[in-house]
Order: sequence, then structure tokens, then C-alpha cells
Amino acid sequence: SLSSEQQGEVIPYVSESVKQTLLEGMDTEAIRLATSGMEVGDIAEVMELVEDDVAQEILDSLSEGDQNQLKRSLEFEETEAGRLLDYEGISVTSHRTAGQVLRHIKKVGMPEYSDLVFLVGKQQKYLGAVTLASVIEADEDTRLADIATHDVDTIEPHLPISDLARLFRQKYYVSLPVVDEEGRLLGRITLDDAMDVMQDEADHQFMSMAGLDEEEDLFAPVMQSARKRAVWLGINLLTALLASWVIGLFEATLEQVVALAVLMPLVASMGGIAGSQTLTLTIRGLALGQISNSNQRALLRKEMAVGLCNGAFWAVGVAAVAYAWFQDPLLSIVLALAVFVNVLAAAFSGILVPVVLDKLKIDPALAGSVVLTTVTDVVGFFAFLGLGSLWLVG
Amino acid sequence: SLSSEQQGEVIPYVSESVKQTLLEGMDTEAIRLATSGMEVGDIAEVMELVEDDVAQEILDSLSEGDQNQLKRSLEFEETEAGRLLDYEGISVTSHRTAGQVLRHIKKVGMPEYSDLVFLVGKQQKYLGAVTLASVIEADEDTRLADIATHDVDTIEPHLPISDLARLFRQKYYVSLPVVDEEGRLLGRITLDDAMDVMQDEADHQFMSMAGLDEEEDLFAPVMQSARKRAVWLGINLLTALLASWVIGLFEATLEQVVALAVLMPLVASMGGIAGSQTLTLTIRGLALGQISNSNQRALLRKEMAVGLCNGAFWAVGVAAVAYAWFQDPLLSIVLALAVFVNVLAAAFSGILVPVVLDKLKIDPALAGSVVLTTVTDVVGFFAFLGLGSLWLVG
Repeated sequence: SLSSEQQGEVIPYVSESVKQTLLEGMDTEAIRLATSGMEVGDIAEVMELVEDDVAQEILDSLSEGDQNQLKRSLEFEETEAGRLLDYEGISVTSHRTAGQVLRHIKKVGMPEYSDLVFLVGKQQKYLGAVTLASVIEADEDTRLADIATHDVDTIEPHLPISDLARLFRQKYYVSLPVVDEEGRLLGRITLDDAMDVMQDEADHQFMSMAGLDEEEDLFAPVMQSARKRAVWLGINLLTALLASWVIGLFEATLEQVVALAVLMPLVASMGGIAGSQTLTLTIRGLALGQISNSNQRALLRKEMAVGLCNGAFWAVGVAAVAYAWFQDPLLSIVLALAVFVNVLAAAFSGILVPVVLDKLKIDPALAGSVVLTTVTDVVGFFAFLGLGSLWLVG
Repeated sequence: SLSSEQQGEVIPYVSESVKQTLLEGMDTEAIRLATSGMEVGDIAEVMELVEDDVAQEILDSLSEGDQNQLKRSLEFEETEAGRLLDYEGISVTSHRTAGQVLRHIKKVGMPEYSDLVFLVGKQQKYLGAVTLASVIEADEDTRLADIATHDVDTIEPHLPISDLARLFRQKYYVSLPVVDEEGRLLGRITLDDAMDVMQDEADHQFMSMAGLDEEEDLFAPVMQSARKRAVWLGINLLTALLASWVIGLFEATLEQVVALAVLMPLVASMGGIAGSQTLTLTIRGLALGQISNSNQRALLRKEMAVGLCNGAFWAVGVAAVAYAWFQDPLLSIVLALAVFVNVLAAAFSGILVPVVLDKLKIDPALAGSVVLTTVTDVVGFFAFLGLGSLWLVG
């Protein structure tokens, strides 16, 4: 087992569920000790997970400066950039010279990820940034205001962290200034925190598609994993029951034409695969901010066109296989039509389902695949068995 | 349409397929013009996509220094860290002082992502790194060798780029030195290139699961998308055909007990969902390097235990639903057993299939889901219809 100190060192780097477990096994004193070496942002996370009185005790144990920082961090939601605020950046008044900044840094030290020096005026008013490179390259007595860069975005503290991550990813920033509504420099956000957000988002997207929490771990205890995953199995069972219900409507038909039962998986699976291709692209497009109200129609048209091509192509392919197997031309035509209709429905829903879920603030990466499977199962079986009832039952 | 110069500016940032399309529309002179402003790494990518004689012309048009750099880059595979080599880093001999380095930088300029200064000896032998922070903080005449850091990994140029990305992600590096087998400093690799690799890997993982190329684009032309996706539909059709074949073995049974046909989707879907949960975790574990020979057995045991819990739990749940529907106790028992067996098979294959594919150097993110669906469809239908034939046919 780990000592409190070791646990304190480990806590910032483990997932939330492991953090919870670690914290549950520690008394107040141990938690206080563990947080003593942490950065303010990490302490904030711990405080959200412990009882109120323990949180208060942690707060009391901090220096006044750290207390103020912590209170400011906790003003922001977990999903807002402000929560990642770092107060260690280099900021100086803009009438300083390059030489003065270097001497200032020499005195107070240079924190990690200091590629930028922030310029402030009265009352911390943000005036711009200078790259450390240009500070070093400039003459001793160059005024900072004269070498300010205009290529640096500023971050609003309520910016969603997913937008923050996108900004760092697109422009490869090392650090960025955070500026509030009144134009005051609050601090900065650095690459390491932005990279954590990126990684979490990629994990979330990937894991959600299988109904997994991004915190879920290969190495978590059996019962914990089983409980979490059982829920998803249950939700998907409802989908499957809907499919069964549709099949049940056609029991009489199936009794007469048992080949329909044999070929059912082909219809469901072609729709399911085509749908999940479109769904995956749409979810990614939404995450990257590529999908807007203005291009939704064009995307829908494109995916419908792809569905038309592949639906027609594979309808013929599947029908050929079925003909070789059952030598029944009408059955083959029924199958072909069902596959065609289902692939088209899949393309349509592959765009529409995630876009609508996103508008309803429901995570499309999580809910999209269940809804889509329901659509392709129901449409597929209904088309196939419905046409079968009309044309194949004598 | 874009001018050659504009195309040159765009080329480094577009996907490979778009790059190919752009290049196909340009004559040799236009390509030469377009590459004239590019970084060496980007030129290398273009050279791989054009005809040999055009590549030669591009090479001839470069300065001798750029030619040498380019030749060195092309010595490495696209999957190796060496391909991302950047030659702009600051390197100095280790007997220099902090003040001398700052004056050196002032003279030659400071490239982006210069958080480290590399120390070299004779014949570019790599001797260590000094953080720029400690150079600035140190006294003028501090010898660099005395403030060298020991926290910096060195990169071997043949390192797979996925390992490189993992290193940057885990330790939040801004730049790292690349050192060859003889201990010579070849150059450095910077954050921006490492982030591109991370993003490509996350994309690849996410897109592969739906059989999509990470280059595939929501905005690509219809025919191009249709062609690429048709292949995946075809591969999955083989899976579905195998499922149909298994069902076909039991046609006689289905004719007598049509309820089996109605309930088939439940068995397939419970196995499919359970399997994709385990598969997703395993693929992620493999990508993160969390899965080794020594913990495979433990993971398999854990997933089997989760499968045992959820298989038993949902077998009872599904059987209860079936009983309420068909009031046939024996049918419910057959269904329960089939679901239970299939969820267990899914857990087993969810670990084993991707691990084996990975050993065979087949991408588990791409091939895993097809193989797994085949397993859960075949096992599920075989168990369900097989038991049904034994117990339900009078």
C-alpha cells in the first residue's frame, strides 16, 4: 500500500474513479498531507470529491495566495477553460524593455511552458503578448510594446474546454492568456492541461460508441465493470426487443417462407454497417466543429448519394447470393429492395440522428449507435418481411 | 481555383488523398514552385506522391543544405520518428556559458518550440540538454554542462511514431532530441509534429472501427466515398452470410418453432454488444501499451468474470421477457442459455481476437469488429437454434 505522501503524488494522474477510491481510504489528515504538494488545479479536483468539512480543512491549510487562486478556479465549471487556469505565467507592464524582462525572469524564475510573456497595464488589463524568442532576440532596451505579437488568441474563461482543446490542436500553442470580460489577464492555460483535455475527448468519443465510460478501465474491479456495462446491455436489449417485435408481426409469413428468417441477418447487417459508417463520420465532424446549419443539407445529400450507390450495388450483390442459394427470383427481389431501402434509411439517419441528438444536448457518441441500430433493425425487418408478406405468401 | 503558390501553402495541411488530387492537377513547374516555400518534411511527403523525375527536379531545385536534410529524412520510413526530424533546434558545445548561448541565439534567431538547448561534443556527439529556463535563470558565466537536465528522453530515429506520440503525451514535452546509434545528435522533434501523430492515431482508432480510412472525409466526392465504403460493406456481408448459413442449418426447426426466428436478434445483439465493450477496451489498452504477455491471462480472467456476471444477469432478464411473450418455459430456458453462452464467448473473443490480430500485425481496430461479430453471430445462432432443435422440436 502507498503512504499518504505517495498517494498525494499519484492522485493527480489517476482517473476519477480511482481517485475516489484512493480518497475513500484516507482520513482527513492524510488527505490534507497528500494535497500539500499539489498544484491548485489538482487540489480543486480533490475538493470536489471529498466531504464539505474535509474540503474546508484543505482550504484552511493553504497559503492565502493559494486560497485565492483556488476560490477563483472553483468559480468555473469543470467544463470551462477557467478551471484549468494556471497563475504561474510571466506578466509584466508593457513599458518594460526586453533586458528588464530577462533580469526579472532571472530573479523570479521561469515556469514551465513560458513561450510567451504577457503584457499588462493598470489593474491587470491585458495588453498583448510577446514571444520569449523575440525578447531574447531583441536589443536590451527594446520596449516590449514594440515587439508584441498579434498571432496569439486570448481565451475567455467560460470557453468550453472542448473549444480550448481544438484551439491548441489547430495552432499548436504552448500557452495562451486567459482574459475576462473586463479585459483583465486572469492567468494562462498551458499545453499539458490542454493535452489532457484532448486525450480525454478522444477517449470519450472512442469509448462512448461501445457504451463505455472513458473512466472505465481494463484493470478496474470485476463488479464495478460489470455494473457499469450491464446498463448498456440493458439499453441495447430494448433495441433488440423492438426488432423482435417487428419480426413477431410477421410470424405467419415466416412459418410459410422460412428462407426469410435465414436471410434476415443480411438485411439488418448491411443497414447497420452503412449506418455506422455515416454515424462515425458525423460524430467526428460534430466534434471537430465541421458541421453547421448551413452545410447539413449538403452533407445529407452527399450521404444519401453514397447510400444510393452502395445500396444499389450491394442490393444486387446480396440478391445474387440469395438466388444462388434459394433459386427463388421473387425472394431475391424482395431481399434486394429491403437492403436498398435499409441502406438509404441508414444514410439518412446516420446524419440526422447525431445532429438532432447534438441539438438536444444528448451526447451523439453515446446515444447515436443505439438509436441508429433501432432504425436500421426496424426499417430493415419491416421492409423485408413486409414485402415478403405481400409477394411471397400465396 | 488556387494559384500554384496558394496550392503550395495549402498542401502541407490537407489529407493525403486531397494532396494527391491537388498534385495531379499541377505540372512539374507548378509543383516545383509550390514546394519552394515548404519545410523539408513537407517536401518529403510531396516527393513520395509524385513521379520519380518530378521528385528529382524538386530535389535539384533545393539548396545543398536542404538537399542533405531531405535525403536524411527519406532514409526513414513514414512510420519512424526520423521522418519528423527538424533541424532547426539550438545546439551548442557544452563548454559554452549561459551568457554565450543567449548571445548566440540573439545572433542566429530562436526557432519555435525551443524550450531546450542541446549540448554537443566533437562530431555532433550528443552530451545532454539544458532547459532554456535554466539558461536564462543562470549567471552569465555558468557553464552549460553544470546546469544540464537529466529529465529529457532522447529519441532513436527508428522509433515507431506511435511510441513517439505516447512519450510526448505522457510527459508533455515541447521538443526532444533525436540521437542516432553512434550517439550523434541528428536534430529534434517538436510538439506540433507529435500532436499531429497523436491526432492521426486517435482518428485512425475511431474511424477504423467503422471500416473508415482516417483520410475519409465528410466532404469528399460521392464516388470516392462510395467506393471506399463499399469494400467494408462487402467484407461485413461475408460475416452476415456466415450467420445466415448457420440459421439455414436449422430451417426445419424454424419451420416448426417460428418463435425462434422472432427471438434470434436478442441472442445476436446481447453477444455483439458485450463483445464490442471488451473489444473497445482491449484495442485502447493495446494502443496505450497497457497490455503485455504477462497480464493477458489476468485480463482474460477479468473479462470472463464480467461476462459471467452480465451473461447470467441478462440471460434471466431476457428469458423473463420471452416467457411473458410466449409463455413457453422451455423456450425461455433455451434463450437464456444461448444468451449466457454468447456473452461469455463475446468476452473471451473480445480479449483474444484483438490480441492475436495485433501479434499477426493486423490492425485490431480495423479487423477486430468484423471477426468479433462473426464469432458472436455464429456462436449465438448455433447455440440458440441448436438447443432449440434438441429441446423444442417434438
